[in-house]
Amino acid sequence: MRPEEARSRLAALGFGSADVETLFDHFDDAEQRGKLGHGHSRIEWLETLDDLEPEATPVRVAASEGFERWDGNGALGYLTLAAVVAAQIEGPPERARVVVCSHCFPTGSLGWYVRKLADAGLVAALTATSPARLPHPDGGAPLVGTNPLALAIPSSDGTPIVSDVSMGAVTYGDVLRGAARPDELVPFGGEQAHKAFALALGLQLFVDALAGDGYGAVLVVVRPEADPVPALRERAAGLRLPGDR
Amino acid sequence: MRPEEARSRLAALGFGSADVETLFDHFDDAEQRGKLGHGHSRIEWLETLDDLEPEATPVRVAASEGFERWDGNGALGYLTLAAVVAAQIEGPPERARVVVCSHCFPTGSLGWYVRKLADAGLVAALTATSPARLPHPDGGAPLVGTNPLALAIPSSDGTPIVSDVSMGAVTYGDVLRGAARPDELVPFGGEQAHKAFALALGLQLFVDALAGDGYGAVLVVVRPEADPVPALRERAAGLRLPGDR
Repeated sequence: MRPEEARSRLAALGFGSADVETLFDHFDDAEQRGKLGHGHSRIEWLETLDDLEPEATPVRVAASEGFERWDGNGALGYLTLAAVVAAQIEGPPERARVVVCSHCFPTGSLGWYVRKLADAGLVAALTATSPARLPHPDGGAPLVGTNPLALAIPSSDGTPIVSDVSMGAVTYGDVLRGAARPDELVPFGGEQAHKAFALALGLQLFVDALAGDGYGAVLVVVRPEADPVPALRERAAGLRLPGDR
Repeated sequence: MRPEEARSRLAALGFGSADVETLFDHFDDAEQRGKLGHGHSRIEWLETLDDLEPEATPVRVAASEGFERWDGNGALGYLTLAAVVAAQIEGPPERARVVVCSHCFPTGSLGWYVRKLADAGLVAALTATSPARLPHPDGGAPLVGTNPLALAIPSSDGTPIVSDVSMGAVTYGDVLRGAARPDELVPFGGEQAHKAFALALGLQLFVDALAGDGYGAVLVVVRPEADPVPALRERAAGLRLPGDR
């Protein structure tokens, strides 16, 4: 999909121009990074939803130095998390802050958000819940979402490390676009899938306990006190590291 | 090893009686849960160390509502994290707190610490670094530690969920006690080992950026606003969940 077409289809859904740019940037970055399940195909998916509220705006319902609480208030999770990230960059914590987001779905590629924070010099960890799609390794109905964990660490060399790991062996987006079968959507890890399942379950309940009903997200944003990335890159001796293109 | 022998060997290393109980409780809980690499075998391992400082005491070097910084100050990581946990239970955050611990090694079974927080009604996430033992999936020398992530969520049914996942396919403790070969100590996940590697690397740099030189740990502790565990257990319909015995 060409950028002009993507933008005009997003605008046709009723989004204002700033939101169109945010959504386009998110989907296009995922597309460019090969995360096709979070890429342009999501525009077609948005067109199938019948409960879009393109004029909704996320709300910061509580704020203190070390804690914020946001509510999507009907806005897409993409736009809620983008607003959260912009607010942290505008008013970063003196040391650390936990940000809890309720009614925040869908959130797409979490690496996109934490990379923006790292580009602004902040260390970030972000997780988000999504519909139950992964069964327990012993069987049964899907019990947990793919619940990714994204971590970003700024670097004085200008290239942050961005680790963004879904607990699913494939993404739901891959299933949506026909690149994976529904039965491949299980916790990753093969014989050790219980580990990815435990991570997905722990992250889901962590978010649920803080954000309450509905899908949510929790962000931890901290000012760094050290610059460990350049030395790690040197030790890695040219191996591709998470977040590298 | 019988409890009396374990306690007397720990006391013979020079630890005071409170620290002996803390260490014994940690190792014995791991042993009972089948985490043998973190169990009684670690007492023999402590006996091989020539730089133990059994009289060292961890120090809280900075504290505010939403942020604390601790330094092991020569104490074992087990004792540093136990002191951190006790301090959070004694003075829990109003909403959320990030606790950064420097010079905090070894830390053992992270589930033990977060379970204590969940038993006190707090939601917790904890990660810690350790010596580089896991290579990049494409090869090379070990680049990252097994860097576990532990998550605990209290429950009104009295049984918290405790998810504690190391990013290694086996533990270093298993290698130490001869239950696994050194070459099995790689990121878990088989064909998708790049995911566990990315988690281990991201968690390592997250801690390193906050805690500075040496091995460290980062704890996030938050008051819950919801009680999601009972409903999840019901949906799991008797399947074994993380942290269950």
